[in-house]
Amino acid sequence: MISADAIRAGDRAALARAITRVESMRADHQAEAQALLAALMPYTGRADRVGITGVPGVGKSTTIEALGGNLTKAGRRVAVLAVDPTSQRSRGSILGDKTRMATLSADPHAFIRPSPSSGTLGGVAQKTRETMLLCEAAGYDVVIVETVGVGQSETMVAGMVDFFLVLMLPNAGDELQGIKKGLLELADMIVVNKADIDRQAAERARRTYADALHILSPLHPDWSPPVLTASGADNAGLDAVWAEVLRHRAIMDANGARAARRADQQIGWMRALIDERLGAAFRAHPAVQARLPALERDVAAGIVPAGAAADALCKVFFDES
Amino acid sequence: MISADAIRAGDRAALARAITRVESMRADHQAEAQALLAALMPYTGRADRVGITGVPGVGKSTTIEALGGNLTKAGRRVAVLAVDPTSQRSRGSILGDKTRMATLSADPHAFIRPSPSSGTLGGVAQKTRETMLLCEAAGYDVVIVETVGVGQSETMVAGMVDFFLVLMLPNAGDELQGIKKGLLELADMIVVNKADIDRQAAERARRTYADALHILSPLHPDWSPPVLTASGADNAGLDAVWAEVLRHRAIMDANGARAARRADQQIGWMRALIDERLGAAFRAHPAVQARLPALERDVAAGIVPAGAAADALCKVFFDES
Repeated sequence: MISADAIRAGDRAALARAITRVESMRADHQAEAQALLAALMPYTGRADRVGITGVPGVGKSTTIEALGGNLTKAGRRVAVLAVDPTSQRSRGSILGDKTRMATLSADPHAFIRPSPSSGTLGGVAQKTRETMLLCEAAGYDVVIVETVGVGQSETMVAGMVDFFLVLMLPNAGDELQGIKKGLLELADMIVVNKADIDRQAAERARRTYADALHILSPLHPDWSPPVLTASGADNAGLDAVWAEVLRHRAIMDANGARAARRADQQIGWMRALIDERLGAAFRAHPAVQARLPALERDVAAGIVPAGAAADALCKVFFDES
Repeated sequence: MISADAIRAGDRAALARAITRVESMRADHQAEAQALLAALMPYTGRADRVGITGVPGVGKSTTIEALGGNLTKAGRRVAVLAVDPTSQRSRGSILGDKTRMATLSADPHAFIRPSPSSGTLGGVAQKTRETMLLCEAAGYDVVIVETVGVGQSETMVAGMVDFFLVLMLPNAGDELQGIKKGLLELADMIVVNKADIDRQAAERARRTYADALHILSPLHPDWSPPVLTASGADNAGLDAVWAEVLRHRAIMDANGARAARRADQQIGWMRALIDERLGAAFRAHPAVQARLPALERDVAAGIVPAGAAADALCKVFFDES
């Protein structure tokens, strides 16, 4: 049995074991994990929760390594987690990889945990959210959640943090890297990374992204997402980046938006988990399984109206439950 | 009993009655509507399905009136529908209002139907989708679905059309009207309307929106959403607008994306309807109703983990079903 006190006391081994329980599929492990989480909830929620995304090669690990080092030097305790939907396939995460954050992973004030490597994206995200809570109870007051822009992973991570940071490459003009649609909604800040390679290009890219963001109505009236340049490799501009995170926190604490965002996130997680379970029970229902494939085919082909198919499937599900 | 043949023969009264059945909450009406739809499915899907959105005052009705007139003159049969989530409150739609489309509503080759005015947004959208199918079976080969940017209504409408058109006002520079986040994902084209008021401003706005779209990765590699200027009031530029709709159709027919988009939409509607019913059954469950409010409060407050709350609620739902 893992002790909640050991985790609160900052026992790294106890924290690691607790996370393993959270990530386990075994029912007894899950029960232990949930009991532990319930006991630790009063000690969670104190961290700055920051999500970081960007295409492979944008320098996420290098930047997190440098930023994390700056923060631990400043007395913060930093946990780095990851949501990597591809790791289910590759068995073992490509993100939050300690070998790619050698200095930070040796830092006693930092804790690095790779992405859970099994389950649906929703399942992976839930394990990461619960791991975040454990890390907060263990006294980490900065939690960085890294992800790569695959499918809905960015939406999932943006849905578990206070501040979502998008790293971009410093291409400019026509070679400007396209911003994946949907990402502009999620970004609380865009940072053009690798500015050391070509300052002019980085500055042109910064201005272009700033212009694009300018014509979007900000998600929150009190915050227009800034666009900065930085270099993770040179640890340049990262203090300005973090200053924006703190400015955002100060504003969103003052207007109550940070607390509201977290409450919405928590309710959203609960509803998503319920929907996931309801959907799983529905799809597992024998009578539904018997009829679903043919009906989906006919609906996709426009032979059967979607409403009629939904009626038929719900009827067998509820009548034969 | 409404005859499917009468609808196929273009009997407007029969079509109107069928739509009333679709919109009715009465079980017997719903059964009749579903039977009618099932019989008519083979004759649906032939229309160009175009969604149009924009803020109040952007000139949606004026533009649809002019565009629709151009199309009927060219031999097309045009149905204009609407999804107005606010009409549930105001009882009676502010959209697709015939009084705002006097000429088109008197046009024998056009059919205008206001938004269904009751039910959830999902319910309103389903009624509109089914009304669209009825109109297609009745021989309307252009279906325009109008909406206003409230909540998720734009996503709903984009999810039922082949082409989603966003109308913008010709403000420019710093007074440039913000594009609601999320809208850029949905837009197959942006039209800066009311260009007659100030051509220079409209052209500046067009260029700004085009630059913004330029840095977004297109939703489909074969289509970069164009940005045009037009004037619904002067019926100026609308032929170019429609030419883009047809160019999009030709490209998306050739690469199979139009058929794939429709199949995805239909499967998506079915799943959304199923999720809606599962959720309704869940929320209506006495044991769930007894525990949900307190649990949601504790989850929002960060006292109870989202996973534990979901587990507890699903347990009572499934154990006591």
